[in-house]
Amino acid sequence: MTLTNPRSRRDGDPVATEVLARARSLVQPALNAATSRLSPELRIALDHHLAGGGKYVRAGLALLSATAAGGDEQVGVVGAVAMELVHNYSLIHDDIIDGDVERRHRRTLWAEFGVGPAIIVGDAMSILAFQLLLEDPTDARVRAAGLLGEATQAMITGQAEDMASELRSSLSVEECLRMEAGKTGALLSCSASIGAVLAEAPTSMVDALADYGSHLGVAFQAVDDVLGIWGESSVTGKPVGSDLRQHKKSLPISIATERGVDVYGSLASPFGQDLTEKEVAGALALLEECGARQETMAIGATHLRLALEALDQAPLASGPRRELAAIASFVIERDQ
Amino acid sequence: MTLTNPRSRRDGDPVATEVLARARSLVQPALNAATSRLSPELRIALDHHLAGGGKYVRAGLALLSATAAGGDEQVGVVGAVAMELVHNYSLIHDDIIDGDVERRHRRTLWAEFGVGPAIIVGDAMSILAFQLLLEDPTDARVRAAGLLGEATQAMITGQAEDMASELRSSLSVEECLRMEAGKTGALLSCSASIGAVLAEAPTSMVDALADYGSHLGVAFQAVDDVLGIWGESSVTGKPVGSDLRQHKKSLPISIATERGVDVYGSLASPFGQDLTEKEVAGALALLEECGARQETMAIGATHLRLALEALDQAPLASGPRRELAAIASFVIERDQ
Repeated sequence: MTLTNPRSRRDGDPVATEVLARARSLVQPALNAATSRLSPELRIALDHHLAGGGKYVRAGLALLSATAAGGDEQVGVVGAVAMELVHNYSLIHDDIIDGDVERRHRRTLWAEFGVGPAIIVGDAMSILAFQLLLEDPTDARVRAAGLLGEATQAMITGQAEDMASELRSSLSVEECLRMEAGKTGALLSCSASIGAVLAEAPTSMVDALADYGSHLGVAFQAVDDVLGIWGESSVTGKPVGSDLRQHKKSLPISIATERGVDVYGSLASPFGQDLTEKEVAGALALLEECGARQETMAIGATHLRLALEALDQAPLASGPRRELAAIASFVIERDQ
Repeated sequence: MTLTNPRSRRDGDPVATEVLARARSLVQPALNAATSRLSPELRIALDHHLAGGGKYVRAGLALLSATAAGGDEQVGVVGAVAMELVHNYSLIHDDIIDGDVERRHRRTLWAEFGVGPAIIVGDAMSILAFQLLLEDPTDARVRAAGLLGEATQAMITGQAEDMASELRSSLSVEECLRMEAGKTGALLSCSASIGAVLAEAPTSMVDALADYGSHLGVAFQAVDDVLGIWGESSVTGKPVGSDLRQHKKSLPISIATERGVDVYGSLASPFGQDLTEKEVAGALALLEECGARQETMAIGATHLRLALEALDQAPLASGPRRELAAIASFVIERDQ
């Protein structure tokens, strides 16, 4: 399994595409039913955000997690909805924090409706996720809610480390990986295991699926970091060099730093001022020359391999196991 | 039971003062232990917020709720910590939304550390509340977590209605009361019943305590609305006429509207521009003349009476019942 260049457009693996389409068709109605319980004021803003789409990767993982553990797909739906709620709440709050005005080629919720509504909508979504799991509190759902709480807190810790890193000149590769494991890995790990928890699978199976999701998260984030710097606007929905303009401490930057290349130190424009095209091009060249892009992709490939190996650590049902592997490749080779 | 003028300074009821001091001494260490699990980046900002103090009313209610139901005070501690976490998260997010730079005579978290950290700290606190209740998931704690989810969502709905009201010229008294029951009543109702849930009290007792808290919330909010308009800066920690400057649709404004007095329509300065001292004085006079202040206090008194009557609907332990009554009076007659 190798990583393709994320800049090249692909149609995606047919297995993964089918799994995600099925996840969407099962989970979207349940997600709509859940959010219809929120106040009308919040729904207008939330619908604007959800209309942007989303790939239902976390929903797909949650459903496969249930079937991989021998459970019925339906058992995983409440977990899938909870994961999509928490994921989307985190996107909505992240966009405020990062000052991003565009996502999925649409204006972000805060840019369209204001910071206050965006804060409140996110708050409502995160609480709703716990409400859904706790309103019919079987032992399995209570365990799932506990898992979701831990994962969400780990994600928040990762976000906090990410924010704190803005005040630092650099992060080590190790610090960066830890931060990204929290920011992205925790929720993917929870998505990949919550279905098994709901299906009352043994701990060893839940743990193997959680490991798969955790490594997938790091691999995903590595690709995201590459896209954040080299991704084309038409593909990412963000301006080229987006992360550079924000002086983000992502994996390629940490790798460059450890190789003696101070990317942000090389910029003439001070932080907060928009970079010139020439500065962006210069920074991209520096990163490319020291091999930071290639090394980031290599780290991604390693964690993709570890994710796939984790699937072999438990007696998962073979069909869902193949689909989990397909999802992993899809997530890594995504181009948008 | 009559309401005193909230502008007059009082030393507070000795019973209530003692209950809240005991709540603080029991709950503050547990709250610190809980927040010590958050990442160091978040704790610095959170400690700034918590150092402002707080009255531990919700903690006190949660503990009394346990003992009123015949349980041990210790049984209520985890509920008390959860309530204080959710209450403080809501204050932190509210301050961003309202653009308030001062609370408890200190700079608000967002004003001191930025909007991003304030969002994240609030998120971490709300999730932590659920984690605490779910990490040792007895039936009672799971029920408590479910109750907390519903109450937090009701609070968020109230906040959303409050925000949406900014775009409207007026709210009816009924709409305003409903919004305030959500914004303030839901969390006080949960605080006043969560201890009984944790003590495994019968539903009728839990419901009576929830009713008490709910009415207390409306009464509290009525006083808060009066303080928001007439409260002195030295007492409220906010500028005089604070709510008027923000064109807030609080109870006195709704009452005035129903009496044919358009307070905000009478202002020369457009919304967003700071009011002159003369405009504030004129608006205060208009509200006073139409009896809006007096009627708001009367509504507060009615709900205080209903709160006290709710305590008679269940066979509560007599000591805690008296203390709950004392807390109600304290909350209403507070001057800061």
